[in-house]
Amino acid sequence: MNKPANQPKTDAAAITPRSQDYGQWYLDVVKKGSLAEHSPVRGCMVIRPHGYAIWEKMQRELDDRFKATGHENAYFPLFIPLSFLAQEEKHASGFAKECAVITHHRLKAIDGAIVPDPASKLEEPLVVRPTSETIIWAQYKNWIKSYRDLPLLINQWANVVRWEMRTRLFLRTAEFLWQEGHTAHATEAEALEETSKMLEVYADFAENIMAVPVVKGHKTEGERFAGALDTLCIEGMMQDGKALQMGTSHYLGQNFSKGADVKFQNKAGQLEYVYATSWGVSTRLIGALIMTHSDDNGLVLPPRLAPIQVVIVPIYKSDEERARTVAEAKAVAAELKAKGVAVKIDDREGMMPGAKYYEWEGKGVPLRIEIGPKDLEKGSLCIARRFLIEKPGETPDELKRRRKVFLPRAEAIASIVPTLDAMQKELLERARAMRAARTRVIDTIEEYEKFFKGEGGGFAWVHWAGDAAQEEEMAKRFETSIRCIPFPDQIPAEAGGEGKCILTGKPSKSRVLMSKSY
Amino acid sequence: MNKPANQPKTDAAAITPRSQDYGQWYLDVVKKGSLAEHSPVRGCMVIRPHGYAIWEKMQRELDDRFKATGHENAYFPLFIPLSFLAQEEKHASGFAKECAVITHHRLKAIDGAIVPDPASKLEEPLVVRPTSETIIWAQYKNWIKSYRDLPLLINQWANVVRWEMRTRLFLRTAEFLWQEGHTAHATEAEALEETSKMLEVYADFAENIMAVPVVKGHKTEGERFAGALDTLCIEGMMQDGKALQMGTSHYLGQNFSKGADVKFQNKAGQLEYVYATSWGVSTRLIGALIMTHSDDNGLVLPPRLAPIQVVIVPIYKSDEERARTVAEAKAVAAELKAKGVAVKIDDREGMMPGAKYYEWEGKGVPLRIEIGPKDLEKGSLCIARRFLIEKPGETPDELKRRRKVFLPRAEAIASIVPTLDAMQKELLERARAMRAARTRVIDTIEEYEKFFKGEGGGFAWVHWAGDAAQEEEMAKRFETSIRCIPFPDQIPAEAGGEGKCILTGKPSKSRVLMSKSY
Repeated sequence: MNKPANQPKTDAAAITPRSQDYGQWYLDVVKKGSLAEHSPVRGCMVIRPHGYAIWEKMQRELDDRFKATGHENAYFPLFIPLSFLAQEEKHASGFAKECAVITHHRLKAIDGAIVPDPASKLEEPLVVRPTSETIIWAQYKNWIKSYRDLPLLINQWANVVRWEMRTRLFLRTAEFLWQEGHTAHATEAEALEETSKMLEVYADFAENIMAVPVVKGHKTEGERFAGALDTLCIEGMMQDGKALQMGTSHYLGQNFSKGADVKFQNKAGQLEYVYATSWGVSTRLIGALIMTHSDDNGLVLPPRLAPIQVVIVPIYKSDEERARTVAEAKAVAAELKAKGVAVKIDDREGMMPGAKYYEWEGKGVPLRIEIGPKDLEKGSLCIARRFLIEKPGETPDELKRRRKVFLPRAEAIASIVPTLDAMQKELLERARAMRAARTRVIDTIEEYEKFFKGEGGGFAWVHWAGDAAQEEEMAKRFETSIRCIPFPDQIPAEAGGEGKCILTGKPSKSRVLMSKSY
Repeated sequence: MNKPANQPKTDAAAITPRSQDYGQWYLDVVKKGSLAEHSPVRGCMVIRPHGYAIWEKMQRELDDRFKATGHENAYFPLFIPLSFLAQEEKHASGFAKECAVITHHRLKAIDGAIVPDPASKLEEPLVVRPTSETIIWAQYKNWIKSYRDLPLLINQWANVVRWEMRTRLFLRTAEFLWQEGHTAHATEAEALEETSKMLEVYADFAENIMAVPVVKGHKTEGERFAGALDTLCIEGMMQDGKALQMGTSHYLGQNFSKGADVKFQNKAGQLEYVYATSWGVSTRLIGALIMTHSDDNGLVLPPRLAPIQVVIVPIYKSDEERARTVAEAKAVAAELKAKGVAVKIDDREGMMPGAKYYEWEGKGVPLRIEIGPKDLEKGSLCIARRFLIEKPGETPDELKRRRKVFLPRAEAIASIVPTLDAMQKELLERARAMRAARTRVIDTIEEYEKFFKGEGGGFAWVHWAGDAAQEEEMAKRFETSIRCIPFPDQIPAEAGGEGKCILTGKPSKSRVLMSKSY
């Protein structure tokens, strides 16, 4: 028999239960799923093949949506001259404290040690891009002359670096992968429309592809992107009740076009500064995915982002049984591939079926098909689901019976696509139910304290009319912040209307979303 | 009527003829095609949307081939600690002179100027990856324990930086985009097989997708990748007769596994160092594409890499004609899209059809369909080809008639896919003919001098038995180098057999390929 097929290695150590230590659980899921790990370079992560395959699926879905809304991809330099960053004052001060700075362009052996060659010192240091507004707008100056050149709708897939001292895989790393859209418009109205449109693209992706429900709104002034006039965001709730900012879309007004002196001739023949937006999501989304859906057995993936949707495990005791079950596995795989299902056969030798089940569970594969000699005799297939939402009043035995079903072959194969679709919906429903269970409409600071200190917290809809110092007071007392000032349609009916600020008692027109966060 | 659709801007300045100034012609083609431009950051280019779309097509084709040969994608850090680079001596000295070095992680305003904060100086400087062998093998140490973990077949799509003083768009830039495969094997034989296999993948891609014929062979010792035991390469010929190295595949032996101390337990239970390969192609391929096929009207693209394969231009004088021709353009576009053709309708207003033709020609779109009111009446379509290979004895009039044809609508639509396929083949044939016309089997240094100094040069098949100093002599006298020691099947029949070194007269078993090069 052949050598086992090459497989990414999986760490088989047990996962710390969520109830015991949520932070450790997260790291264990990342490890068991072979998603990522720390590198010897401070703050930089290595994205392992299974983690990168999820990112590729995300990229494809997002890129299709960007192109469908008229955007094109391009690529701009990794390095930004120091003087560029300084063009927009708030932008510079916002990023100055976390920049990787390049000062030399050559190494040299001096006294046996390799060091930066003093003779290669750059006249002007370069910064590794923490975001690309300034370098991109310097180029837009050459591309935009007239209203006919607008709108300019460009996106870039790239790596960026923001020096971080405290890092956490996917959620906060010094280097991360992202996309950044940078658009230029003739009018404020059109730029604002773009800002909203791209937030809707992110929200649609979060809910329908990631199966993570989100609240859409504006960031407060203090939480805005450095240099933006308005920052829109989507906020998801993780299983520990904390919020995670999943994507932002910024209206930049004329701040960057003024910094780079980008004017266009409008239809009336006058010169005007261009209006700008920028918007981005990053590999942080993989962290959101993990913390929304996964369980104490490891990663759970929504089928639409699963690099492998179905794994087929042939079960055998003899070479003869192996030949027959592997042949059937290949036949089933071919039928599923023809339906567009991403399928993998795990016929590695020298490994017990149970160890394989355990590994693929940890990698979040939604469905497993087991094929043994008895299944061949009966003409049936055994299908096991990675997860199942408990029905009200269901006993553990009933749940178990639903989780693993034996179906006649044709029926089994026909059931795969509808089952994957159903699982995608169930994950979103479960995430919605989890969020609903941890969301409160709160009107007094006592209730607020009880919710965040006694009940574990979650999303709180509260009236707010405080200032920046009072926001900080809330952060100190409860570790919470205003996640967003929601769009009106995001506020649940029972939380609508005017009221009084939870802290100051001042009148408030509408509620905000408060929560602990990542 | 509506505002013109957003389009990347095109510079309409005329292109310098190739015969006049090949270097300027190249820059003009890049500019007219809106492919790329220099940025304010020394040596770094901006890849514009049309150039990036070509890179995306290349990536998709290559990535499919990598995955079909069992490779997975992953992502490793942008930064490499100085000490890692130093692990492999030749590797370090090979890249030390062109490294961007990061020495600080924070900026600070001192006396009103923003400078690297002296307090943020790194204990150990970091280098922006010029290639990733060392950082990847540091990680492989955690992943490889036993022969069961091998082979490990990983690829990375990334940006890399090699500081360059003299840059040329796509061909030589400080930052460029590439893919780098890094594989680990249990035996030398398996690693050598991988090295060859990936070179074949590159050669297949070059010939069948890029339509660029290549010569496959080994680099000489002096031209090897820093740290490799053998470097395989593919060499294409550009229209000016110079060679361009288009891809390399390296057998690294145990150099990097020893540097990073990566051992595995073999089947006999003994510890052994792992065998390694690495292989890569970059955005340089876009330069090769331009210099092989383009003409004095601008970019020429093989249909399989054209982001837009067919552009449809409606022609009209009145609003009523516009409505009818645009409607027909949409109907034709829908039929072509259903056949898998990448089609674009150019219905921009305020622009003459001729200006549109000129722009799309410059962008290398293979086919143009013109739809005017007369075509609607006749039920026909006018199809114009971006290029046509002249037939022997054909008059300019005959050529022109073949270039632009009027066909009944159904016949025209049915002809598009076969025409694109034919154009793909014609480009490869034309490139083969061009290469054949500039290739010589040369046996004396006088002939050699005549070829390279009098006849413009090209590929020379010569016997060689010189040493490194003599190679340098050839470089000084003729600006030529050994492009490769070809695989035996790459040598044309008329150049086969043994002979005497063209410079030293010493006996030689087989010929090498000499040429000027980029």
